[in-house]
Amino acid sequence: MLQVGINGYGTIGKRVADAVAAQPDMEVCGVSKASPDFGADGAVRRGYTLYSAREDRVSAFRKAGYEVAGTSEDLIAESDIVVDATPGGIGAENRPRYEAAGTPAILQGKESDSLVDTSFNARANFEDAEGAEYVRVVSCNTTGISRLVSPLEEAYGVEKVRATLVRRGGDPDQTGRGPINDILPDPITVPSHHGPDVNTIFPDLSIDTMGLTVPTTLMHMHSLNIELESEPSSEEVRELLAGESRIFVVDDGLAIDGTGKLRELARDRGRPRGDLWENCVWGESINVQDSELYLFQAIHQESDVIPENVDAIRAMTGLAGRDESMAMTNESLGIGL
Amino acid sequence: MLQVGINGYGTIGKRVADAVAAQPDMEVCGVSKASPDFGADGAVRRGYTLYSAREDRVSAFRKAGYEVAGTSEDLIAESDIVVDATPGGIGAENRPRYEAAGTPAILQGKESDSLVDTSFNARANFEDAEGAEYVRVVSCNTTGISRLVSPLEEAYGVEKVRATLVRRGGDPDQTGRGPINDILPDPITVPSHHGPDVNTIFPDLSIDTMGLTVPTTLMHMHSLNIELESEPSSEEVRELLAGESRIFVVDDGLAIDGTGKLRELARDRGRPRGDLWENCVWGESINVQDSELYLFQAIHQESDVIPENVDAIRAMTGLAGRDESMAMTNESLGIGL
Amino acid sequence: MLQVGINGYGTIGKRVADAVAAQPDMEVCGVSKASPDFGADGAVRRGYTLYSAREDRVSAFRKAGYEVAGTSEDLIAESDIVVDATPGGIGAENRPRYEAAGTPAILQGKESDSLVDTSFNARANFEDAEGAEYVRVVSCNTTGISRLVSPLEEAYGVEKVRATLVRRGGDPDQTGRGPINDILPDPITVPSHHGPDVNTIFPDLSIDTMGLTVPTTLMHMHSLNIELESEPSSEEVRELLAGESRIFVVDDGLAIDGTGKLRELARDRGRPRGDLWENCVWGESINVQDSELYLFQAIHQESDVIPENVDAIRAMTGLAGRDESMAMTNESLGIGL
Amino acid sequence: MLQVGINGYGTIGKRVADAVAAQPDMEVCGVSKASPDFGADGAVRRGYTLYSAREDRVSAFRKAGYEVAGTSEDLIAESDIVVDATPGGIGAENRPRYEAAGTPAILQGKESDSLVDTSFNARANFEDAEGAEYVRVVSCNTTGISRLVSPLEEAYGVEKVRATLVRRGGDPDQTGRGPINDILPDPITVPSHHGPDVNTIFPDLSIDTMGLTVPTTLMHMHSLNIELESEPSSEEVRELLAGESRIFVVDDGLAIDGTGKLRELARDRGRPRGDLWENCVWGESINVQDSELYLFQAIHQESDVIPENVDAIRAMTGLAGRDESMAMTNESLGIGL
Ligand SMILES: NC(=O)c1ccc[n+]([C@@H]2O[C@H](COP(=O)([O-])OP(=O)(O)OC[C@H]3O[C@@H](n4cnc5c(N)ncnc54)[C@H](O)[C@@H]3O)[C@@H](O)[C@H]2O)c1
Ligand SMILES: NC(=O)c1ccc[n+]([C@@H]2O[C@H](COP(=O)([O-])OP(=O)(O)OC[C@H]3O[C@@H](n4cnc5c(N)ncnc54)[C@H](O)[C@@H]3O)[C@@H](O)[C@H]2O)c1
Ligand SMILES: NC(=O)c1ccc[n+]([C@@H]2O[C@H](COP(=O)([O-])OP(=O)(O)OC[C@H]3O[C@@H](n4cnc5c(N)ncnc54)[C@H](O)[C@@H]3O)[C@@H](O)[C@H]2O)c1
Ligand SMILES: NC(=O)c1ccc[n+]([C@@H]2O[C@H](COP(=O)([O-])OP(=O)(O)OC[C@H]3O[C@@H](n4cnc5c(N)ncnc54)[C@H](O)[C@@H]3O)[C@@H](O)[C@H]2O)c1
Repeated sequence: MLQVGINGYGTIGKRVADAVAAQPDMEVCGVSKASPDFGADGAVRRGYTLYSAREDRVSAFRKAGYEVAGTSEDLIAESDIVVDATPGGIGAENRPRYEAAGTPAILQGKESDSLVDTSFNARANFEDAEGAEYVRVVSCNTTGISRLVSPLEEAYGVEKVRATLVRRGGDPDQTGRGPINDILPDPITVPSHHGPDVNTIFPDLSIDTMGLTVPTTLMHMHSLNIELESEPSSEEVRELLAGESRIFVVDDGLAIDGTGKLRELARDRGRPRGDLWENCVWGESINVQDSELYLFQAIHQESDVIPENVDAIRAMTGLAGRDESMAMTNESLGIGL
Repeated sequence: MLQVGINGYGTIGKRVADAVAAQPDMEVCGVSKASPDFGADGAVRRGYTLYSAREDRVSAFRKAGYEVAGTSEDLIAESDIVVDATPGGIGAENRPRYEAAGTPAILQGKESDSLVDTSFNARANFEDAEGAEYVRVVSCNTTGISRLVSPLEEAYGVEKVRATLVRRGGDPDQTGRGPINDILPDPITVPSHHGPDVNTIFPDLSIDTMGLTVPTTLMHMHSLNIELESEPSSEEVRELLAGESRIFVVDDGLAIDGTGKLRELARDRGRPRGDLWENCVWGESINVQDSELYLFQAIHQESDVIPENVDAIRAMTGLAGRDESMAMTNESLGIGL
Repeated sequence: MLQVGINGYGTIGKRVADAVAAQPDMEVCGVSKASPDFGADGAVRRGYTLYSAREDRVSAFRKAGYEVAGTSEDLIAESDIVVDATPGGIGAENRPRYEAAGTPAILQGKESDSLVDTSFNARANFEDAEGAEYVRVVSCNTTGISRLVSPLEEAYGVEKVRATLVRRGGDPDQTGRGPINDILPDPITVPSHHGPDVNTIFPDLSIDTMGLTVPTTLMHMHSLNIELESEPSSEEVRELLAGESRIFVVDDGLAIDGTGKLRELARDRGRPRGDLWENCVWGESINVQDSELYLFQAIHQESDVIPENVDAIRAMTGLAGRDESMAMTNESLGIGL
Repeated sequence: MLQVGINGYGTIGKRVADAVAAQPDMEVCGVSKASPDFGADGAVRRGYTLYSAREDRVSAFRKAGYEVAGTSEDLIAESDIVVDATPGGIGAENRPRYEAAGTPAILQGKESDSLVDTSFNARANFEDAEGAEYVRVVSCNTTGISRLVSPLEEAYGVEKVRATLVRRGGDPDQTGRGPINDILPDPITVPSHHGPDVNTIFPDLSIDTMGLTVPTTLMHMHSLNIELESEPSSEEVRELLAGESRIFVVDDGLAIDGTGKLRELARDRGRPRGDLWENCVWGESINVQDSELYLFQAIHQESDVIPENVDAIRAMTGLAGRDESMAMTNESLGIGL
């Protein structure tokens, strides 16, 4: 059984841990956290062995009543592979530690592509990660775009993507993040860094992105314009996307008017944490005029990269090929709405 | 097996349905909805028999692909007891229908106390509902206050309650509700109607309440001042409350700074829909000075009344007494954090 | 002196009244309101003669201590021209009244273009309104787009406009509007109705728009992609826009990161009500790649249409031609940042 | 003419500068800022001489096109008195500089009472600041409570104050502040530090405060319970408060339901920056039961301390006594709604 260590047990890390634990071919050998707050409590309750990010915090964990099996260094040593889900920038700091320990590692979207052998999206470039030692699962927004571009590129060819990314200000538990009553061009410069990030997956794609930040916590929203190389009907595109396992085409009859009702649907379906691993594309919004496709999609920032991390583990370790891995991940998590 | 009909399958109704389904001594004989949106889809997926609120909507349900077993009238006829979770005011309209069918019914907090034999909170006045035909489970806020006052009254006597209720503007899926960037005295007049509502449970309690509405969706927050008849220490009160099955005393070490992290804790614990059936009282906030107790508690408006509805069913039908019923409900739902 | 009646004294009406009062060639002969709230108080303090929208409300105004000079019918009769700033849909109802009284009238953006001789934006089609009896000042969003397209069309030719309109949920005093924590595709269908609305000003323009609504109150934000017929440099476009009197190109050095700081700038400049009559285009965001121009602009929904209403009055009544009117309006209000 | 230096030209500093400039007996000799953003632009446009907070930033100001007359040290040397409106904590760092220069100074609410001769509220303890060298104008919340307690104490005697302070998360231009969708007990411990702060003005007052933070930007809201030593009627209290120059009793007929409409009223009245220097007490909320007074008041955090700073200057320098000073400040600013 492949032993997977989770270094950084926050929004992303705790979900990766649960997803790994749900797989038949791997298990969580431990999770590492920086402080003994309610997240630590949650880890223990789920039965994960707890490690302290830093040596000098071990006593704080013990004082708070948590047993810790060691530090992140220890976790790295004991793992066959590590998923690093520490805050942006810490992954880069951790990179030499993985190297020193000879442990392959997956970094997350905020880290630089230059630190890894390849950036990764299961649907788009699983093969590039096969056998790689260091892989970066691209950010929630880039994952969302990649899943959409992949089938469109294959079916029709993509001339150009123009995207406005309306991003949530913070996750539901991130008290300190704003804005409260504002719309921010973020970054102000156009095109934003998101386009080049997509190019780490599709090097030749012509894509321009504009970023905004708004005072919400539930999901990002993408307003998309995609010039295709051929002229499918809106209906054909809708069917193509509905055929993708990690895209949920929202049916008109559901009367879902935004991200609040989408997350409510996930709660109704009994999804763990109310997660929506799939891109949520409003069927009604899909519109092809001449060869230009328009659509809205909502992206659950907390969870869409989770299945990608699981698949990246399989790609790197050779546990399975793309289709088999995606199918196993989908099946075990219950992906598909 | 007691057949429970759920008339009105929205925020409250769908949770009551799931809670009833989880009990060993009752089952959901059907749920009724006004329109065939994603809520209907959820009901069907959970295996509940669907009824249309109105005859003239049956075709709309059928057109949307849903089988309906009849109208609310039919559901009422087939149920041993009905939980009415329709929007405020509709319960009053439905009241004669229950009478005509001879079906006992539970109304929710927005309906008038004058429509029922008794208002209800399991901890405070279970006995009053025993054998009653019409019972009203008090509102989320009144439920939250009742659970707190009950043990305090028993242990120390309560001289007076002064409460500021800072209420969420809407539930997460209520797109149309505001405010967006405002704090509203709601109502402007003081004391608010909430105090008299608490008096439907504790007729002799001296209580003054002030209501505010703010732009959030997660939970209400109560800022409480309670004059006691004796002078327990803060620590004693903390232990008393920690001993209540439907009160969760938030431990300081968890580092939970507000409603966002509370709901995150619920998600971490794998709670269905991330629900928090318990009053959440910050342990650190509990402070007794002379005989005045201060504390903050957060109330999950979508879910705290759910166990109360289940217990009301048992009280009315005689399935069990207070302690047995509360224990069964707690056990089956997993109440207690 | 031209006598201007303001029918509907709310967000738009009160600003139009103040703007008219600031002109040398026209004056406010009265304002009409539906209810005697703090808006009525404001009207009286500014010295405007008050009229009651409906006969049966006159007594309510009197009871509240306000003198009313009559009803909207009376105001219409006494005005040389009326600016109708009633809520969307009421303008259509009022249309026959203006006709009956022989009083020319200006309707606002929510009313249908089919009710008027022409839709109007001063910069783009002042001439079309010259001598017209019924004119519609287009909505805040359409006004914002028209001001931008006009100079671009003249200087470079416009091939196609693609716009994502991220709209504020409500004005600061609209307590009842949401959403609270949501991003809504609004409408879900793409392209939205905004494009055709722009076509009432530029009939031949190719434009696709996508609408979203977010929980803010300060300004709308437009994320724009404009294909030009020639290839100016980013710097040239920036200079072109900076030369427009009703466009404010936000300088990088000001360190303005969103709509909050923009409105703060307006407050710092002593603007009445903190209004921003100008489109606010972030200079740093202006980017031309090949012949595609990208930029972000913020639109103050409460005030950008105000100078347009004043200019429409002059166009309809022949008080002045386009350049003279716009100059007078700009000068008297202090437009230009 | 008294030369007043403003050290720290942000939310509070820019308003103090404008207020000082509006007085007949003092003038602004300069304002100091840390960085050359749009605030610097505003200072220059209003004709204030600009100083750089730090020597090593002078060149940044010059590069951005601003003339600076020197550093904060220079400003302190040239001022007869300085109003320090730097961010919390910097005032304490600046304190020795004022001492070294022999320049009296006013600090703001976030600084410690121990740094000054007295804390200050014009209505409550003007006399304590007469002739003092270092004075602290208490925070926006404490100012709001002091203005209310003062007349109540004089007229009826105050037994005890219990206050829940529902605070705005950030000012409108503070992009980085949250929360977005949360209600935070802040601090979690009860009573909060606000009570002791009020005791710097009323040493013997019995007061307990509870603090909350919510996602709004416009005003704080106080939910108050005040035990009086006698039993006035609600009407008497209303008249008492209406007689206070810095309290605005909101009339029921105005139909003002919250902070959004209050600020709209200020905009309607032509207030600079839409400021509300007065406590805003809802008349309808004033309720005395036995000897307990309840009421809601809204406090405009950006502006209520401004007149207090002006009065503190006069108290310290002997320019005028309490009544004369308050009258001059009120008259020059236009206080009183
Ligand atoms: N939250 C999102 O929306 C989102 C989406 C996609 C990708 N990501 C990326 O995932 C990564 C993690 O983000 P997150 O939102 O989960 O962060 P988070 O702050 O929720 O969690 C970070 C976790 O790392 C722990 N940690 C901090 N320093 C550590 C260290 N030195 N060693 C080990 N653990 C440490 C913290 O205790 C915490 O448990 C980031 O790169 C982020 O960009 C986040
Ligand atoms: N949401 C809360 O926070 C909350 C908390 C406690 C109590 N309550 C009370 O519970 C009741 C229900 O509130 P909710 O929030 O669940 O409302 P909701 O709007 O979420 O759900 C109401 C449901 O009733 C259905 N319905 C409407 N008219 C109907 C009719 N005539 N017959 C049958 N069904 C009909 C709707 O289709 C919907 O499914 C109200 O009395 C409310 O005051 C709500
Ligand atoms: N608020 C904006 O952001 C905005 C921007 C551009 C255009 N508009 C358009 O301007 C128009 C007015 O919008 P608003 O935001 O000013 O609305 P509002 O609700 O703020 O004001 C409407 C006013 O009309 C009065 N009124 C209502 N019925 C009336 C009647 N029958 N006769 C006379 N007066 C009546 C009301 O008392 C109120 O004073 C709408 O068409 C709207 O679409 C609004
Ligand atoms: N904003 C409020 O709601 C509010 C209300 C009452 C009291 N206060 C208090 O007023 C003080 C100022 O708060 P604010 O909101 O105006 O802050 P702010 O951040 O808006 O402004 C602070 C200003 O000080 C300048 N500055 C920073 N460091 C400096 C230094 N070393 N020397 C000189 N200038 C420096 C900054 O450039 C900025 O112009 C704080 O003590 C705060 O607690 C604020």
